Amino acid sequence: MNEPLFSYSSLWQVAFDTFRAMGCADDHAKTASDVLLSADLRGIDSHGLARLSGYVRLWEANRINSKPNLRIVHESPSTAVVDGDGGLGLVVAPFAMKVAINKAQAAGTGWVAVKGSNHFGIAGYHAMMALPHDMIGMAMTNASPLVAPTFSVERLLGTNPICVAIPAGKQPPFVADFATTTAANGKLEILQRKNEDAPQGWIQTQEGSPSTNANELKLGGALIPLGSDREHGSHKGFCLGAWVDIFSAVLSGANYGPWVPPFVSFLAPPAHPVGEGIGHFFGAMRVDAFRPADDFKHHMDQWIARFRAAKTVEGVDKLIIPGDPERESEIERRAHGIPLNPKVVDDLRALAKKMKVKVNFPD
Amino acid sequence: MNEPLFSYSSLWQVAFDTFRAMGCADDHAKTASDVLLSADLRGIDSHGLARLSGYVRLWEANRINSKPNLRIVHESPSTAVVDGDGGLGLVVAPFAMKVAINKAQAAGTGWVAVKGSNHFGIAGYHAMMALPHDMIGMAMTNASPLVAPTFSVERLLGTNPICVAIPAGKQPPFVADFATTTAANGKLEILQRKNEDAPQGWIQTQEGSPSTNANELKLGGALIPLGSDREHGSHKGFCLGAWVDIFSAVLSGANYGPWVPPFVSFLAPPAHPVGEGIGHFFGAMRVDAFRPADDFKHHMDQWIARFRAAKTVEGVDKLIIPGDPERESEIERRAHGIPLNPKVVDDLRALAKKMKVKVNFPD
Repeated sequence: MNEPLFSYSSLWQVAFDTFRAMGCADDHAKTASDVLLSADLRGIDSHGLARLSGYVRLWEANRINSKPNLRIVHESPSTAVVDGDGGLGLVVAPFAMKVAINKAQAAGTGWVAVKGSNHFGIAGYHAMMALPHDMIGMAMTNASPLVAPTFSVERLLGTNPICVAIPAGKQPPFVADFATTTAANGKLEILQRKNEDAPQGWIQTQEGSPSTNANELKLGGALIPLGSDREHGSHKGFCLGAWVDIFSAVLSGANYGPWVPPFVSFLAPPAHPVGEGIGHFFGAMRVDAFRPADDFKHHMDQWIARFRAAKTVEGVDKLIIPGDPERESEIERRAHGIPLNPKVVDDLRALAKKMKVKVNFPD
Repeated sequence: MNEPLFSYSSLWQVAFDTFRAMGCADDHAKTASDVLLSADLRGIDSHGLARLSGYVRLWEANRINSKPNLRIVHESPSTAVVDGDGGLGLVVAPFAMKVAINKAQAAGTGWVAVKGSNHFGIAGYHAMMALPHDMIGMAMTNASPLVAPTFSVERLLGTNPICVAIPAGKQPPFVADFATTTAANGKLEILQRKNEDAPQGWIQTQEGSPSTNANELKLGGALIPLGSDREHGSHKGFCLGAWVDIFSAVLSGANYGPWVPPFVSFLAPPAHPVGEGIGHFFGAMRVDAFRPADDFKHHMDQWIARFRAAKTVEGVDKLIIPGDPERESEIERRAHGIPLNPKVVDDLRALAKKMKVKVNFPD
């Protein structure tokens, strides 16, 4: 798979111009492009430019408001609820995370639930906003219902990711960013493109039987919570996905469970919504609200160094600390360019043409 | 397995008298007994009276302080660090959770990290303390290192449980309380007693190979993070366990990772500790810091009702909502008594004799 490489700046410009063409204000288009491209940099290709046309289609279907009035609708010293006004999650989420950081400055911690939003890109971008402030950052979101809880044949939850970003001193930060299912949908998409089967334990059929068909979701099948089956703890993965759903949507007043509006424009949102848009939940905790920041960082360095030095199974060099692969991808791709699947490039060119946006990378 | 049944009050009294005999003050002995017995009531037999002799042995080894000076050593409007002074986790944890609840009353949320503690019983007890206040409760703790991160052959983490307790209206509360490993240690103990093999994916040998030997931990093997293997997301289980460890111990100044002092008295604590005792982390969030409590409860009722009504796989009546099995166990056992394994009963009688405590249940 030798995919052509594209410079960060040329891809960023296409995203920015496209968001501007949707009617986004300059600062919103800039933020949305930063968030979207951070996925491509960090190697989470399913959540980056490959999704740009999806956002545009939702906007065309009047399901994304490119000029949202973002505002706090409820608050306490350490909490807030933000109404995203149907805006791009890529813009709503950083706004809400800033509110969480501001609350934490004053109260030690800040916790913000969001309603009226849309897909927010990668959770990691938002949680990591806390790091330069010597804060721990958290981000979670609910998502299109594609996941069947343990023993269910209905798709009631999204892949509902969680990110926890923790600052260190000399070591790079600890950044755990993961879907609460055995495998994220993006991994299935890769198998679909390669026409390969999925491992056992990732998906089930419409009747709830095990399946290895990477296209099973199109036949009414479902993704499975982390753990794969009851004997291996899938009820715990269900707990995680449910927790994310409730914090993101029941606390905020967004849609939850099977009522979450799907990301794809060709599926209509449920006819009788129980809330507004999709929901997110963010947290920021000042580490010096617990102990002096230097003490904390010293011990985080020791934690990371000890785990990184762990004795490993044969054939594996060293333990992977959460955040390592994404950070290494970002260094590599900033230096040498971002690989894009040819289908994504074609899609991007067609999109640019439709939106009357100039594409400044070579054929 | 028709085990003899014992009344809650008779078992509670044995625990209370034993804690008093250790030198605990009346109110501490009462709290510790409430917490310990809540595990027996809720069907988490591994964390209840079966552990009483373990606490006594740690006290005999001068590793539990029965007269701790519990105090807040650092705080902000929404946070605190509690020093457990080497006390019983069964007493330290409810103290810290009360601090979190008080912080939440004033600031919307309260977050408390604890150092200098010991095993705190079931996470669920502490998290559920928030429910009568119309608050969401959270509890987590690190624990004896028995778990190998993905690709590691070293035991660096505990089973590090998380509990999230969320109030509802007419429905019972949502209470997710789970170890962040594929299987908790208590499940292995049950297999050991029955002389049965463990399923694939629960444990590995000292060299990191898959094992089904329920006694593998005694041979240097390890429990495995939720997910079982890399292909099924064990790196996500590692993220969860690491998150719990860092929040519980790096934020508070307790021991983390392989430095956590083991619960069993026959294993000495590490010679060069990096902190004090074991660590916990608690949270309380007022639901009306996000939206009116009645709105929240109405939507939680709808969430629970919708999931409970989900179409299930053949042979399963209805979806299990987190907290259902434990609540049903408590109703059953309060009415008809608590079953105890004959080995646990013998152990309890021997303990009572040693501590000069009267046992008021029949032979």
